[in-house]
Amino acid sequence: MITMLGGGIGASRLWTGLREAAVDRMPLTAVVNTADDVWLHGLRICPDVDTLLYGLSGVRDEDRGWGIAGDTFRCMAQLRRLGGDAWFSLGDIDLAVHLLRTGRLLEGATLTTVTRELAERLGVGVRVLPMTDDEVHTRVSTPSGPLHYQEYFVREECRPPVTAVEHVGLVSARPAPGVLEAISTADLVVLGPSNPVASISPILGLRGVREALHARTGPVVAVTPVISNIPITEDGEQRRAASRAALLAARGLAHRASAVAGLYRDVIDAFVLDVADGDQHGEVAALGLHVIIADTLIRDPERSVGLADRLLELISAPRRPLNPLAEG
Amino acid sequence: MITMLGGGIGASRLWTGLREAAVDRMPLTAVVNTADDVWLHGLRICPDVDTLLYGLSGVRDEDRGWGIAGDTFRCMAQLRRLGGDAWFSLGDIDLAVHLLRTGRLLEGATLTTVTRELAERLGVGVRVLPMTDDEVHTRVSTPSGPLHYQEYFVREECRPPVTAVEHVGLVSARPAPGVLEAISTADLVVLGPSNPVASISPILGLRGVREALHARTGPVVAVTPVISNIPITEDGEQRRAASRAALLAARGLAHRASAVAGLYRDVIDAFVLDVADGDQHGEVAALGLHVIIADTLIRDPERSVGLADRLLELISAPRRPLNPLAEG
Repeated sequence: MITMLGGGIGASRLWTGLREAAVDRMPLTAVVNTADDVWLHGLRICPDVDTLLYGLSGVRDEDRGWGIAGDTFRCMAQLRRLGGDAWFSLGDIDLAVHLLRTGRLLEGATLTTVTRELAERLGVGVRVLPMTDDEVHTRVSTPSGPLHYQEYFVREECRPPVTAVEHVGLVSARPAPGVLEAISTADLVVLGPSNPVASISPILGLRGVREALHARTGPVVAVTPVISNIPITEDGEQRRAASRAALLAARGLAHRASAVAGLYRDVIDAFVLDVADGDQHGEVAALGLHVIIADTLIRDPERSVGLADRLLELISAPRRPLNPLAEG
Repeated sequence: MITMLGGGIGASRLWTGLREAAVDRMPLTAVVNTADDVWLHGLRICPDVDTLLYGLSGVRDEDRGWGIAGDTFRCMAQLRRLGGDAWFSLGDIDLAVHLLRTGRLLEGATLTTVTRELAERLGVGVRVLPMTDDEVHTRVSTPSGPLHYQEYFVREECRPPVTAVEHVGLVSARPAPGVLEAISTADLVVLGPSNPVASISPILGLRGVREALHARTGPVVAVTPVISNIPITEDGEQRRAASRAALLAARGLAHRASAVAGLYRDVIDAFVLDVADGDQHGEVAALGLHVIIADTLIRDPERSVGLADRLLELISAPRRPLNPLAEG
């Protein structure tokens, strides 16, 4: 079994590649960040979960990177005409998942159950676990006050300076049923190329997750979300990079692959650097991590399968000792 | 000022006529039934309020009698594909009102406030008051168990026999701010041609409403929702008639204009019979009510204005004594 932790478009694309590469060989479990979930208009919105569900079921709009291809926005247009808050865009078809999820949650179903039901109905072919059934939300501090992460990322388009980041509710949140077991029993755990502070930190911060990662004997590998030496041309990626950089900076870290490797060093033993960032090999190796150099620019399915194959090699490779700096 | 009590398509069409007939002469207030409101998918649905808002703003689909003309149902189609409960159909544009309303209610706004905001934004030109800000729901008993009124009316299409009707929460509900005053100070109060048990009884049952009607010196008139001597050809009207008949029967009453007049006799002093039902004149007059004979088949705007003109005459007519049977 392979277990992947993360959330967002980068992780979703990698997980699609892993599904292709691992098909019929081993089951996949995705543990998905829910700290950027938000309630709007009475509806529970789970951006990272839905990005994954839509990506794995092949209905995601790949140009936008979110929502459903071919969707319309008649409801949002009317909401705007009525003077409502329409900054978080939900397509007309996309709304159905939100109505279904919210209805089930209010009936008393857990997010884990609802997510499993949605994954089955959408035919994603991967076990998808929200990181927790409890409510956690990432709050960024800005000079003009605190913002929910979605307000910062979507409504304010990452413009306000970020002075601090916290995950409200994380201390008391429990990992969703199956999360710790999926980490403990997997042949390989992959930290996806996700926003390190917004998407990975909340999962790592859940009670028991670091312990479960430390207790593993099998490999834990992280794929860099940052490529320094390739200019960013995609609009959505520019926004994502701005948020990654701002949130890393708020934690005192550079927007650099080696800084991400440093953030994860206590829980991983291998780190995938992009081929363009080979110049950081020494920095990452100096953290005591095994370094893999690969093409991580996984905008198209073939590339993500190529990267996935490199990750799968870790399982059959002779076992390296765990990161000595992380032990004890 | 004219105050109208009721809910549903018949009342909405009459109120459009009243607005036309009374334009620039006197302000109108609609006190709308909310006992058939329902929460679905986490959204607050107010069928009677929305039928009025959409009707008065000219966007209602008149063929269906609900929702917005030209709307699409992409969200509902997807909800059905995902195995969700899609029996209560909400159009994609229609959904915007539900998102806005629900969001505002969850922020702490009252239904009165949200309804006023929506009425302003939609440009309805009439003051629209929900009957209460508290939650009331009509529950019908059937041989296979209790149903919310919407489950009975929409999902079950009025097929189950109805053995009893109750308005859950009505005893403790308070009239919305402005309701009692609108009844007390109006030159004319009109009970619309609405379902007597589902739409009018909840308003009359609110604390203080009967007392406010009794204390009036000006006229209170009801327009019959039932026309016995004209066959029902419209699909929607057949369903509405089935529900009216079943709920009247559950209260031991016939589906007949004179029976409705009898139900209202303690709070009205005049009753409008349809021209086709002139044969019931004597029955209604025997209740001590002033009888008006008019064309109440107000499917088109001209006819509703004609009926409205007849109602407006009541204001300037020499005042008749209040129904003697209702006094004391």
